[in-house]
Amino acid sequence: MKRENIPQIEWQFSERAQQLKSSIIREILKVTQRPEVISFAGGLPSPNTFPAERMRAGFDKILSTSGTTALQYGPTDGYPPLREFIANSLSKNGATILPEQVLMVSGSQQGLDLIGKVLLDEGSKAIVETPSYLGALQAFSVYQPKFESVAMDEHGLRPADVAAKGKDARLLYCLPNFQNPTGLTLSEDRRAELVDVCAALRIPLLEDDPYGALCYRGEPLPTMLSMNPDGVIYMGSFSKVLTPGVRLGYVVAPVPLARKLEQAKQAADLHTAQLTQMVVHEVIKDGFLSEHIPTIRTFYSGQCDIMLDALRKFFPAGVTWTKPDGGVFIWVRFPKHIDTMALSNEALAQNVAFVPGAPFYADNPETNTLRLSFVTVSRERIYEGIEKLGKLIASKL
Amino acid sequence: MKRENIPQIEWQFSERAQQLKSSIIREILKVTQRPEVISFAGGLPSPNTFPAERMRAGFDKILSTSGTTALQYGPTDGYPPLREFIANSLSKNGATILPEQVLMVSGSQQGLDLIGKVLLDEGSKAIVETPSYLGALQAFSVYQPKFESVAMDEHGLRPADVAAKGKDARLLYCLPNFQNPTGLTLSEDRRAELVDVCAALRIPLLEDDPYGALCYRGEPLPTMLSMNPDGVIYMGSFSKVLTPGVRLGYVVAPVPLARKLEQAKQAADLHTAQLTQMVVHEVIKDGFLSEHIPTIRTFYSGQCDIMLDALRKFFPAGVTWTKPDGGVFIWVRFPKHIDTMALSNEALAQNVAFVPGAPFYADNPETNTLRLSFVTVSRERIYEGIEKLGKLIASKL
Repeated sequence: MKRENIPQIEWQFSERAQQLKSSIIREILKVTQRPEVISFAGGLPSPNTFPAERMRAGFDKILSTSGTTALQYGPTDGYPPLREFIANSLSKNGATILPEQVLMVSGSQQGLDLIGKVLLDEGSKAIVETPSYLGALQAFSVYQPKFESVAMDEHGLRPADVAAKGKDARLLYCLPNFQNPTGLTLSEDRRAELVDVCAALRIPLLEDDPYGALCYRGEPLPTMLSMNPDGVIYMGSFSKVLTPGVRLGYVVAPVPLARKLEQAKQAADLHTAQLTQMVVHEVIKDGFLSEHIPTIRTFYSGQCDIMLDALRKFFPAGVTWTKPDGGVFIWVRFPKHIDTMALSNEALAQNVAFVPGAPFYADNPETNTLRLSFVTVSRERIYEGIEKLGKLIASKL
Repeated sequence: MKRENIPQIEWQFSERAQQLKSSIIREILKVTQRPEVISFAGGLPSPNTFPAERMRAGFDKILSTSGTTALQYGPTDGYPPLREFIANSLSKNGATILPEQVLMVSGSQQGLDLIGKVLLDEGSKAIVETPSYLGALQAFSVYQPKFESVAMDEHGLRPADVAAKGKDARLLYCLPNFQNPTGLTLSEDRRAELVDVCAALRIPLLEDDPYGALCYRGEPLPTMLSMNPDGVIYMGSFSKVLTPGVRLGYVVAPVPLARKLEQAKQAADLHTAQLTQMVVHEVIKDGFLSEHIPTIRTFYSGQCDIMLDALRKFFPAGVTWTKPDGGVFIWVRFPKHIDTMALSNEALAQNVAFVPGAPFYADNPETNTLRLSFVTVSRERIYEGIEKLGKLIASKL
């Protein structure tokens, strides 16, 4: 029975927990559940791309033939055949990646958390792009680093700025392909230069690559992992090429770091579901992704073209935006006096949603920017939503 | 191409990462993969208890009818119908638990990590049992608390010792039902007393209950959650009553803490797989567990009786052990001069495995103790393994 008249707790949170805030994106997404809202805010993949029947057949097969293994506890580092598959698929451009470098994680976000946990002390310098992926800033913030933002231009982050600011940094975080939030790609020359700069300064280089396979123009650029497997930490995910619902990603790290991350993973959640890993391996082992990914590319690049067309038609002069070669995001920049946080509320009142740019900056936010996702909205509604936004903006100029 | 002649990184880990060690249990489990080893070391449930066909049918149904929802990103706090199911099932003994108190996590281990992250600063006092669950010690250690061990006897942890040592503690961790590693149960009087002591000292009381449903004798005792829903954090899991392979557990916390844990979960891995949660809800929503759990109880309690019988037959005088009322573990205590860490190597040479007791102590380990699991070994091999161990021990007395 309930104890009567006992004192209430006043919750005292740890210092690191006091850094935690809810993501503004998740807050906006709650509002955009209403069907009348045209939402360019989400970072979700289109459910049209989910191979539900393939996944169903995969679960059916694994649970029919290997149920007791799949439903038991499994190894912390992951399901060996899947780790081997990933190591092989990343052994390109002359690099050899070993299965023992691969740690399976419960989505890339967990990779970010484990890397922050293992590499960052309070006050450690962590270098990030300007702007950077919000989820990474959140994950690292828990460990209370000092962020150092480095400049970007249309070719991505500027290695010279890393050389200038990077001394004693414990981590450089970079999203080289079709970056979230800008859609920009780090050029091949810059990749080589960044690898050299980080190696010279002994900075671990974290290459986050959830969108690399979603390349709409030209050839995919080589990974920085392939340029320096002993100094680069690479993160990949099945969320954008298969389904985010299974929460499956991977970290590829030099062996000493991989073992430390494995220990951190063991303390954090023992291991990622063996069942899921076996099913994903079953689904992809015979080349399914090489049939499936081109269908996503075709669909998303068509969506991207529609949005770029709509922006040209409906956005007034004085507004600029990126033209991504892949991925799911376009980044828009307005004249300085436009505050997109205020604009967001006005747009929501007209049932159009986007994510204001400010939260993507570790410091000194540019409040005249915003992020648009082009993959989940129908083509008609992209035109409708961008036209509404364009009129709203025109009224401010 | 690989960059040539670039400097190598020397990995520098965070202070918290330097606390991380691999679990000795996982190390022993690697050795016990050999089929000739009779292993009482694992904490794994018996795969005979996994409802593989039910799970297969569940995945089949959810992926056939709700594939796009199940395969998309989901809410951080979890799948609402499952949270409601759990809240209802814990609303007993006069307590009302709200769905918003329930946070779905990727196995209980993640609950331990998130609670440590949110409540413990470096040097915070964390009270644990003597001995305590190794995975909890590992999870909390990352956050560098100061552990304070409190005494146990055959009725479980002693609340008077908490009253004596608990001032300013940030957490008390307790596993009241069929404790891992001892198999002991905290008596009902002690539960009420512990709730009162913790409330008086404003200590958050963490009640970890993975085994509560596996009760072989008498009636299940009321949860401490039901005695003080505003001051107790409760953790449950589907690992021991359904399958560990889906990595699904839950934390039930007073609302202010639940929201902070939700923020920590978002930064740690966004959310637990929606697909898995929908399938588990589908499997259990119509009362499956009330048919299924009794079959596990019957099987495990038979295993327990066999091991207790074998211990009586083959262990020499001077050795004592617990007689658990449920769960999966028996705790054995030898005369002081026996070091079970050394004994473990000798036993392994004879193809018998157990877990030495020392790692379960936050400090001052009793090196003359060990843990036996009775659920995964066949009855014949339980007799065989305990006979071998008994002879080995007799030779030391």
